Amino acid sequence: MSQETPQPSSGGSPHQGPELRVKPAAMTALLHEEIPLTRAMGMTVAAWDGRSVKLTAPLKLNHNHADTAFGGAISSMGIMAGYCLVHMLLEERQISNRLLIQKSSVDYLRPIDADLEAVACVPEEPVLGEFLQSLQKRRRGRLTLESRVMCQGLVAAVHSGLYVAMLY
Amino acid sequence: MSQETPQPSSGGSPHQGPELRVKPAAMTALLHEEIPLTRAMGMTVAAWDGRSVKLTAPLKLNHNHADTAFGGAISSMGIMAGYCLVHMLLEERQISNRLLIQKSSVDYLRPIDADLEAVACVPEEPVLGEFLQSLQKRRRGRLTLESRVMCQGLVAAVHSGLYVAMLY
Repeated sequence: MSQETPQPSSGGSPHQGPELRVKPAAMTALLHEEIPLTRAMGMTVAAWDGRSVKLTAPLKLNHNHADTAFGGAISSMGIMAGYCLVHMLLEERQISNRLLIQKSSVDYLRPIDADLEAVACVPEEPVLGEFLQSLQKRRRGRLTLESRVMCQGLVAAVHSGLYVAMLY
Repeated sequence: MSQETPQPSSGGSPHQGPELRVKPAAMTALLHEEIPLTRAMGMTVAAWDGRSVKLTAPLKLNHNHADTAFGGAISSMGIMAGYCLVHMLLEERQISNRLLIQKSSVDYLRPIDADLEAVACVPEEPVLGEFLQSLQKRRRGRLTLESRVMCQGLVAAVHSGLYVAMLY
């Protein structure tokens, strides 16, 4: 998370400094309104600094028969960390977008026996610039993003998602 | 679904004919009790014939911002079809088990704009026999299972899961 904010060559201005258009609480409210399962999970957009997003969810709504996190909840956290990251980085650049996921995979590394966190980071150049350029030229762009699902500071699962963004 | 019921060489008797130990309604109740997200999704074990399992879930609880099924809900349906299949095939053989998922991947093929179904089938020999033998000899076995998430008769997503079963 120490890298510089990538400077795309197209697609509007990236955010500079602390002024961010998208607020975590507003993004959480949007998710809960539009995707009922995120509300049932208690999924919260806990932090967004323009370069990375962090989601949280309580174990008590997302456990399985073994009192560890349900695989589908872990998968959903990974999917949504990537989704929120792409949506928010485009919103910061005032690019109206609609997103789809085409592929999703999860490696479950260890059981999660406490509340869940998921983190995704804006990709570095040239990946981000190519994505934004494709959006500008072809009105759609594809981005593969990794997100990590954490528990008490340890990586418990790694999600990889292929997202498609369309201008909207 | 026209293949013969596989006859494992170990691990107790597979079911014969219509007498099944596990009833879909009881399996649904167990899921809802132990995994709250399955209840929030309205996930139902709709059918089990000893060779295949079918889960259903209403779109109205599982939609996204585009009024199609949320990727995390589709992933959860795929995961749980495989999970239920392994659990139920072991229960039919009176093998007490605990299951984990180690890997999960989904290819999203088309949007789902109506209620969801997910189907998984018992693997054919020698895969099933080797899994049951491993459980008997080593008290654990691994099985890769594919499940299909359907919408109005069309395959909308394909899930592949690597499940680990332990005697319990």
